[in-house]
Amino acid sequence: MENETNFTVPVLGPCKVQSPVKMSKIHGDKLANYVADDEFILFDLNARPKDPRREYNKEELLEKAGPREMVYFNPSHVHAAIVTCGGLCPGLNDVIRAIVHCLWYRYGIKRITGIRYGYRGFLSEYNIPTMELNPEIVKSIHNQGGTILGSSRGGGDVPAIADAIERMNINILFTIGGDGTLNGALAIARELETRNTKVAVIGIPKTIDNDISFVERSFGFETAVTKAVEAIHSAHVEANDSVHGIGLVKVMGRDAGFIAASTSLATSDVNFCLIPEFQFDLEGPNGLFVHLEKRLLARNHAVILAAEGAGQDLMNPTGQADESGNKKLGDIGAYLKTEISQYFKKRNIEVNMKYIDPSYMIRSAPAFPTDSIYCARLGTNAVHAAMAGRTKVLISLVNNVLVHLPIEIAVSRKNSVDIEGSLWRDVLETTGQPVVMKN
Amino acid sequence: MENETNFTVPVLGPCKVQSPVKMSKIHGDKLANYVADDEFILFDLNARPKDPRREYNKEELLEKAGPREMVYFNPSHVHAAIVTCGGLCPGLNDVIRAIVHCLWYRYGIKRITGIRYGYRGFLSEYNIPTMELNPEIVKSIHNQGGTILGSSRGGGDVPAIADAIERMNINILFTIGGDGTLNGALAIARELETRNTKVAVIGIPKTIDNDISFVERSFGFETAVTKAVEAIHSAHVEANDSVHGIGLVKVMGRDAGFIAASTSLATSDVNFCLIPEFQFDLEGPNGLFVHLEKRLLARNHAVILAAEGAGQDLMNPTGQADESGNKKLGDIGAYLKTEISQYFKKRNIEVNMKYIDPSYMIRSAPAFPTDSIYCARLGTNAVHAAMAGRTKVLISLVNNVLVHLPIEIAVSRKNSVDIEGSLWRDVLETTGQPVVMKN
Amino acid sequence: MENETNFTVPVLGPCKVQSPVKMSKIHGDKLANYVADDEFILFDLNARPKDPRREYNKEELLEKAGPREMVYFNPSHVHAAIVTCGGLCPGLNDVIRAIVHCLWYRYGIKRITGIRYGYRGFLSEYNIPTMELNPEIVKSIHNQGGTILGSSRGGGDVPAIADAIERMNINILFTIGGDGTLNGALAIARELETRNTKVAVIGIPKTIDNDISFVERSFGFETAVTKAVEAIHSAHVEANDSVHGIGLVKVMGRDAGFIAASTSLATSDVNFCLIPEFQFDLEGPNGLFVHLEKRLLARNHAVILAAEGAGQDLMNPTGQADESGNKKLGDIGAYLKTEISQYFKKRNIEVNMKYIDPSYMIRSAPAFPTDSIYCARLGTNAVHAAMAGRTKVLISLVNNVLVHLPIEIAVSRKNSVDIEGSLWRDVLETTGQPVVMKN
Amino acid sequence: MENETNFTVPVLGPCKVQSPVKMSKIHGDKLANYVADDEFILFDLNARPKDPRREYNKEELLEKAGPREMVYFNPSHVHAAIVTCGGLCPGLNDVIRAIVHCLWYRYGIKRITGIRYGYRGFLSEYNIPTMELNPEIVKSIHNQGGTILGSSRGGGDVPAIADAIERMNINILFTIGGDGTLNGALAIARELETRNTKVAVIGIPKTIDNDISFVERSFGFETAVTKAVEAIHSAHVEANDSVHGIGLVKVMGRDAGFIAASTSLATSDVNFCLIPEFQFDLEGPNGLFVHLEKRLLARNHAVILAAEGAGQDLMNPTGQADESGNKKLGDIGAYLKTEISQYFKKRNIEVNMKYIDPSYMIRSAPAFPTDSIYCARLGTNAVHAAMAGRTKVLISLVNNVLVHLPIEIAVSRKNSVDIEGSLWRDVLETTGQPVVMKN
Repeated sequence: MENETNFTVPVLGPCKVQSPVKMSKIHGDKLANYVADDEFILFDLNARPKDPRREYNKEELLEKAGPREMVYFNPSHVHAAIVTCGGLCPGLNDVIRAIVHCLWYRYGIKRITGIRYGYRGFLSEYNIPTMELNPEIVKSIHNQGGTILGSSRGGGDVPAIADAIERMNINILFTIGGDGTLNGALAIARELETRNTKVAVIGIPKTIDNDISFVERSFGFETAVTKAVEAIHSAHVEANDSVHGIGLVKVMGRDAGFIAASTSLATSDVNFCLIPEFQFDLEGPNGLFVHLEKRLLARNHAVILAAEGAGQDLMNPTGQADESGNKKLGDIGAYLKTEISQYFKKRNIEVNMKYIDPSYMIRSAPAFPTDSIYCARLGTNAVHAAMAGRTKVLISLVNNVLVHLPIEIAVSRKNSVDIEGSLWRDVLETTGQPVVMKN
Repeated sequence: MENETNFTVPVLGPCKVQSPVKMSKIHGDKLANYVADDEFILFDLNARPKDPRREYNKEELLEKAGPREMVYFNPSHVHAAIVTCGGLCPGLNDVIRAIVHCLWYRYGIKRITGIRYGYRGFLSEYNIPTMELNPEIVKSIHNQGGTILGSSRGGGDVPAIADAIERMNINILFTIGGDGTLNGALAIARELETRNTKVAVIGIPKTIDNDISFVERSFGFETAVTKAVEAIHSAHVEANDSVHGIGLVKVMGRDAGFIAASTSLATSDVNFCLIPEFQFDLEGPNGLFVHLEKRLLARNHAVILAAEGAGQDLMNPTGQADESGNKKLGDIGAYLKTEISQYFKKRNIEVNMKYIDPSYMIRSAPAFPTDSIYCARLGTNAVHAAMAGRTKVLISLVNNVLVHLPIEIAVSRKNSVDIEGSLWRDVLETTGQPVVMKN
Repeated sequence: MENETNFTVPVLGPCKVQSPVKMSKIHGDKLANYVADDEFILFDLNARPKDPRREYNKEELLEKAGPREMVYFNPSHVHAAIVTCGGLCPGLNDVIRAIVHCLWYRYGIKRITGIRYGYRGFLSEYNIPTMELNPEIVKSIHNQGGTILGSSRGGGDVPAIADAIERMNINILFTIGGDGTLNGALAIARELETRNTKVAVIGIPKTIDNDISFVERSFGFETAVTKAVEAIHSAHVEANDSVHGIGLVKVMGRDAGFIAASTSLATSDVNFCLIPEFQFDLEGPNGLFVHLEKRLLARNHAVILAAEGAGQDLMNPTGQADESGNKKLGDIGAYLKTEISQYFKKRNIEVNMKYIDPSYMIRSAPAFPTDSIYCARLGTNAVHAAMAGRTKVLISLVNNVLVHLPIEIAVSRKNSVDIEGSLWRDVLETTGQPVVMKN
Repeated sequence: MENETNFTVPVLGPCKVQSPVKMSKIHGDKLANYVADDEFILFDLNARPKDPRREYNKEELLEKAGPREMVYFNPSHVHAAIVTCGGLCPGLNDVIRAIVHCLWYRYGIKRITGIRYGYRGFLSEYNIPTMELNPEIVKSIHNQGGTILGSSRGGGDVPAIADAIERMNINILFTIGGDGTLNGALAIARELETRNTKVAVIGIPKTIDNDISFVERSFGFETAVTKAVEAIHSAHVEANDSVHGIGLVKVMGRDAGFIAASTSLATSDVNFCLIPEFQFDLEGPNGLFVHLEKRLLARNHAVILAAEGAGQDLMNPTGQADESGNKKLGDIGAYLKTEISQYFKKRNIEVNMKYIDPSYMIRSAPAFPTDSIYCARLGTNAVHAAMAGRTKVLISLVNNVLVHLPIEIAVSRKNSVDIEGSLWRDVLETTGQPVVMKN
């Protein structure tokens, strides 16, 4: 890990209020315990026998998430707000529901406002009414996909958002979104600091691509893989039942191919898994075309799974960016469909290609139960973090433990598939594709 | 019904062989019964009190399907073949499995050949090996989608196919396919007749669009609707969670909008159901655009479900045909996506459109249980029909009864949604869309 | 059909009010049509060539369901009520939703009351508040199983119910339930007639067993079979993976074995299908034990599917009845589990039995899409029937057409699996079980 | 952690054979890497700032799993065997398939034998033929539940098993099973050591209860929770729709309540979660009955989820053990059903109880995709471990990293839900049940 990584968690101030959440401080009394302020975990697990270890600096340890005995806010003064931003992801409603439940039932906080359609819900120019949230409203929202708050891309005018937060007397803001959203949250928090307004800004990292760094697993990811597997089943059946059938599936994954890689592992039916981290050529003796042709002639069918960010160097990307600041990608699915067809037409080989893009059906699915559990815990711990005066942090899973992670660190780099690591190693073994597909 | 409709079933010759299927001819002995040769049903159920009725002509009655006491073929001489043609459809493997089971276990027929990749599997130029079929091979094929035989479009050289059938000594041919396939089966049967070769040619009508006439319900149709409903759920979630969200879904339905209509009924989330039978304009005071805009401004979101054959008059179709003789359609999904976007751009109204095409995921799904039951019965009764010397017939469900239907009749016209009937009436009530969308 | 069957539909009086549902009376104008009062269908489809046919009597024809041009009630005076009774069944919420939608949007009726927990919701002694129904409340209830109104068994005091109906000024009552409920509806309607109170009492027949006569298919039945198939898959896996594994599954079916029979057809994994209509012995050379032992020794595993009403003669039933008047059955599942275990213990043969009772998981499932469509149509047509002044009728599917059926006829006998008919014939072929299992 | 815990991994001997698995040893060359012999991870993540740390002892570090550059066995001499024991669990076939794939494709090992029906498949007295395994046979077994090898309980005669292993010249044995199976594997390995026969015995820990210690997550567990959630949905619908409805569900969990706890978290519908680790009374002011009655009167319905090992102290357990050595449990489901009914009968309160036991439907389900991925990795790494000469180890996930864990340690204690930890804390928050239910 690099020197500059500093896991120290920003706080609004000292915790002087006794928490209304009743727990025990005694181990062995068979009652659930508070998390103490000196409970941390190591980030780096790797060790070699006889390694000498120095003392730990606080900066290199991760603070455990969970309920504290003393909290920063007086619950009766709290007005909490929740906003969801960016594209849909399974589990958004589960997170919202868990936040509302924990605020309401555990801390007795009844003023909970849903900001609608992302950050623009703060901006008066759009004139979008907010939504009051309570347990009755969120009762069964986890059974449906999407977010009851609606969402939109884009950040918007930070001072105007800060104005709105001050005007509404919001002192806790939960932002559920990706990279752009978290950067926005950071900017908002800093703006409020300059005004000396005490607002806990807590992020719940949402990235169906699983590409936020220091976040072991993003919520909705398991559901996404489960749904992507269905698309692979279809592609495989279609390919298998045609003469020289090719099933081509595109899934999410702009900068990181985790969904494609995991989907390939979950089913043995993918023959070529193409992800942004894996450079490949189409033409040439080691390119996709030659390997694909070989496979078709030998086995009659093939399934190709491409992450949306794969093969961008093959196309001529415009370099433009969308409203969330993400660069516009070339459409690798359409591109491969055309190029592969032309190649085999030139070679005078009949192929039957079926192209499936299940992205919207993946994003909009309700969370499967294991994701629901994870979302419930993220939401609950986000509330505990906010009440304990943490700010500019997100809730993250590291080494299977929920921790507080400074947003600044999380957005400083991107997570991606390690081409030399065990995940990609297992993908190569499963697909049987060439280790190198560059000439 | 028109005068020329003649339901008389072609037969190869008299049935002189005692069936190995042991059943009873006595009602009341608590043993399952054979179907007698004079068991027919009425096609037209409609009646008015005091209607005078003449005698029934045989031509207007439909022969019941089922096992006969006397059969045409000596089971020990039978070589049966099965071929699947055209696009995939849920339930193909269920039908294959039922045919094999009934031939093997009920009639003791052990020579069963699967012809691979459609009619081209008969043609020596392609050099495709056939596949021996038996209960072990088909044991669990119904749990996977597609067809284990593979499929292809196109008919091929009828005399060459007849040659192959003679060469292989096939005397029963089961063809599972749509319109084109059934026309091919008819041509093959006629060719064989001119050669005086006794082959029972039995069709099992496959049309995911449900558009073969005199066939009440096509196998796989219920599964298709069930899968299409999932796509609508996704489209609705995506639309509902965006600012002026539009979910656009395209499903199968070249000439008949049954899938789109039934899917609209199964969920209340479709606001505009567009099918080939329903003419509509885009522009003008009564066109889609105006109604869509109204809906978006009032309710913020809308879901549009288009059958692939809808709105063909709006585009400039090429008039070309594919290998099965189907005319090539304009892509209504892509067309609507572009046109709607441009309209709202001109109107300076932000819309967020998500376009979903679940067609391949629908076609390749394994049959749901109720379709499996239906497929099992189609396959079983196809075997009984063949053994009883019927030929040039298909197995059809009419008024909820399985009957023998001459292929000639089935291919003489197409089935489509009656715009004045109860199905479309119910769709209009469910979607709330305008009854007329032409200016 | 017996002489006394009389399909004549009771009506409250002449229809003199123009329906607010706008439709066409002209065929060919591409607008949906009303149903005319002289549109009937035949019940008996069977015909033989040259059969002479007499004129049809009205009593032997079935009136088509659907919207009429003239209706009996003035929509602005209507107060409609809905009650659900008896055990749960997939699709109850779909029916409720369709009734509410059709009343509200098509007829403009806004006074719709849900009676809670069955007929007892009418009785003041229970003091159960009613529930106002409108489109917002029923918006997504079809996605959850059960009934939002709650349910209970038992009829209750008919005059007291009639009092409540009069007190609330209800003039349309929709009762969704089985045999007992329909008998109750009949009694209530008759009581109201004696009081000269004009109330349309419409039944929607609910019977997961599919055992109401003259009703081709009950709603929820397809979902029930689909869920039962899952239980068979489990039983098969468990049986197959043990030494002499036996999977024993019990499903609903008190007097009629339709679920068990259809489930056996949908999967090839059932080896013994036991239904109330099929008498069998346990002991003796032709009893279940011997055949089961033979199967286990030959194939190592077996799956038995028993309807709850099967084999009642083998046990000593108490003869008692539950609150809905249904006789209490012996528990065939527990009985077979014990008896089979003892038999093999005596024979000194190791068996591994796994007993699965999925009944509650079947009953409480949300309807699958094809059932949803059917429920939507039942509910809609129930409203049309009520508005047209029909009473003491239920909506039934006969020969694939929705009709009005007098409740009196429907409850006069029970529907059951014809042991000599095609369904049971197909079950025997699929399971391979002996045609006779009595000594 | 206690002093005696020693993570040192037993090995058969030095690795002198170059692995046929081609990988890189260089970081940064974009090629997947071998695992080096000095790659370990920490078990205990907890840390406090300024903690002084001594050197790491090898005994307290966990060896990373994965492919080694040098292996112990010459692949061309290997005969591998796989055996599955005990009750079914989702993912068994996935593990088998991954082992076969890795042996066959990565190491070129073609002699792979499946031992059928557990350890008894080794014993000549049962005369059970073995099963040859290859990629074609295991191609799609992961789509079905259970194990293609069959399973049985019980260990059997260790010397006789060792004889069989020697007779067959097996030098790698993969045992997939729980506690009893792992103890058996240990005994077999020790017996073979005394004979100086070099056999790598590798365990893949199977415990649907998730109760093997030092194993973070057992395969099939996520699938089990997903299926259990379905049962809760049913119980909730049934309870909610009756007068004083009680849904009672029993799930697996003999000594550890992980399934019940996780299922409660995944859905908010459980009101009382009863697990072995949580002691509770039925009677008395703080017992279940009083709290249940309160809930029913306030909210009309309640859902109770009991792990099979819960409340054993309330019944009179026999103390007997089954063939795997597990003690026989009292049936908490049947017990609660009876006791609760009697309580409310005495109190003269109508209740409607529905009892669901989904255990067999959970155990026999095919693995969901996220479990499939995990199984694939367990199987692959088990092969790498065996080839590297490790023995008496199992593959475990610790702190989200796959490691080699000595079987001896794994079976030395049991894993259970920490009543003071975060999982149970979250369950209490979700169910809202009393923290203490003892008087």
